[in-house]
Amino acid sequence: MSNYIFRDENAIYYECGYSSDNSIFLQCGVEAFFITDSRYTIEAKKMVQNATVITAPNLILTAQNIIKKSKIKKINFDPKEWSLFAYNTLSHSLKINFNPIVDLSHQKRVIKREDELLLIAQAAKLGKKAFKSLAKELNKNGCGDDEYRLTYTAKSILSDFGKYDLSFDPIVAINANAAKPHALPTDTRLKKNDLLLVDAGLKYQRYCSDRTRTVAVTKDFRFDTEQKFQSKKMQKAYDTVLKAHDRAISKARSGMKAHKVDALCRTLIEKAGFGKYFVHSTGHGVGLDIHEMPYISSKSNAIIEDGMVYTIEPGIYIPHEFGIRIEDMVAMVNGRAEVL
Amino acid sequence: MSNYIFRDENAIYYECGYSSDNSIFLQCGVEAFFITDSRYTIEAKKMVQNATVITAPNLILTAQNIIKKSKIKKINFDPKEWSLFAYNTLSHSLKINFNPIVDLSHQKRVIKREDELLLIAQAAKLGKKAFKSLAKELNKNGCGDDEYRLTYTAKSILSDFGKYDLSFDPIVAINANAAKPHALPTDTRLKKNDLLLVDAGLKYQRYCSDRTRTVAVTKDFRFDTEQKFQSKKMQKAYDTVLKAHDRAISKARSGMKAHKVDALCRTLIEKAGFGKYFVHSTGHGVGLDIHEMPYISSKSNAIIEDGMVYTIEPGIYIPHEFGIRIEDMVAMVNGRAEVL
Repeated sequence: MSNYIFRDENAIYYECGYSSDNSIFLQCGVEAFFITDSRYTIEAKKMVQNATVITAPNLILTAQNIIKKSKIKKINFDPKEWSLFAYNTLSHSLKINFNPIVDLSHQKRVIKREDELLLIAQAAKLGKKAFKSLAKELNKNGCGDDEYRLTYTAKSILSDFGKYDLSFDPIVAINANAAKPHALPTDTRLKKNDLLLVDAGLKYQRYCSDRTRTVAVTKDFRFDTEQKFQSKKMQKAYDTVLKAHDRAISKARSGMKAHKVDALCRTLIEKAGFGKYFVHSTGHGVGLDIHEMPYISSKSNAIIEDGMVYTIEPGIYIPHEFGIRIEDMVAMVNGRAEVL
Repeated sequence: MSNYIFRDENAIYYECGYSSDNSIFLQCGVEAFFITDSRYTIEAKKMVQNATVITAPNLILTAQNIIKKSKIKKINFDPKEWSLFAYNTLSHSLKINFNPIVDLSHQKRVIKREDELLLIAQAAKLGKKAFKSLAKELNKNGCGDDEYRLTYTAKSILSDFGKYDLSFDPIVAINANAAKPHALPTDTRLKKNDLLLVDAGLKYQRYCSDRTRTVAVTKDFRFDTEQKFQSKKMQKAYDTVLKAHDRAISKARSGMKAHKVDALCRTLIEKAGFGKYFVHSTGHGVGLDIHEMPYISSKSNAIIEDGMVYTIEPGIYIPHEFGIRIEDMVAMVNGRAEVL
């Protein structure tokens, strides 16, 4: 078994079923250690699986001592997880080979286990349900609210009023503000017939969901994919994004390279004349982190496999006019993409 | 002028009045550069002061090129701000001296300017007002809610329903759960006569507030410091914490070492017989970050000076029974601590 050391909260959770905001996981030969500070001793002893729990004031020096006493000669780590300061403190006086592997934990996590797939599916289901509740609330009380307040409403409903953590701060953007793929809220207020883009997700037992819908704020609108906009240009862009989204989902196959999946969206959007307005990649993996492998981009040679979970989220963003994005999560099952 | 490079969002904001979640600030001789990606070009050009805005897909390589073209021989940076990966990418092929200074930006920011003091005072004022509104809401509807829901209510009111960012996730803890200084919410529900600890803060124009009150949930309770508990032990601990808090605030002076300010609380709590239950330090600096210099701990030799802002937050935590903490922010003005 290879030796490795993790600092990232989700990387550690994946190894032993628990983590805190201050912990280290160390696999050292056949032995594994979960190191944290005394605030978390009780919870850690109850929750950590397959590792010895050690509580100490200085985590890094504790890990260093364990490594020193072991006879290992090489240890893998992710240089993105460690600050230069923490790495120098850890490696100082250790005469072993620190082997940097970028995205080490993400690599381990790219194929989801059955139990992980169930948790992710449950997160996606709760996310979908929250979009339904959000539409109900916005139809009743949303018009007149600015994007700050709409974002707050989205957070309240997505979290079920504090019950769930969110995958990320929701994006709630009206008309031209939706043209910025990572729009921050403004004081623009929602009116009837506006275009409204909502990108949001929640965590279920630490696994993330992610979903985007773009809608016309008509009477009793829903966050579904059938939308009628008053502007012809908007409708054409919308129909193009929806076709690209549906095409990628129906044609993605295990064994394909990720850039081929990206191309399923991109070529369709290019042919419709909107190519230069699709400014990001088609999707990203989702799991314990909201962004993980595989990355569905035009440059990725990663091979799509059964058990991978990722988003399909084509978009068209016309600066100062509007932005449209439709996003679903899929899991690769029996060679095909199944919408979660 | 010394050369330096920052990666941290608040460090960058301090330098030029703007930052995004993906930016670098580089002071290179007399020239300063703000580097970000194209998502932020428009905002950056509007907001950044005293630095040239550069938009590029790869921030680190862009910074590297600027450094390469300049004639500088040495650059300061904070090794806690840079991952090993980012540092290696930046420093690769550059033949200059990278000089690590831990907490470089925090050091620059420890004495607040007049305009910063005004913003922090405003954050503290809004935080205090929010505690008042929270008491009103909890008196009306709080009893029966679990800590998850109470935390959600605190978040809603502190953020003024989405208008302000929070300094950190509020701590709302009942009875024995308050004995954990960093309590996470549980499903314990609030009842009349419970002990309730609330530690929360909000950001005003990016500057943080921080405040803790511990109260007896009697009829029409308020988050003030006059509290009557039914248990004698609780009352004795409460009175001790309050005396320690008041003592430190009235006796702290510019020119004192931070460990002396800590001792103002600690010796009083020790003399009352609760010494081993005061398990953390007396306070921490507050500014753009919720934790910054000076640290008011028993080991700190930092000298307190006019213009510093920090918390005074003694506590007594009796495991499985209860926890008490009273926290205010102070600014050193004319040699004395002024409560914000």
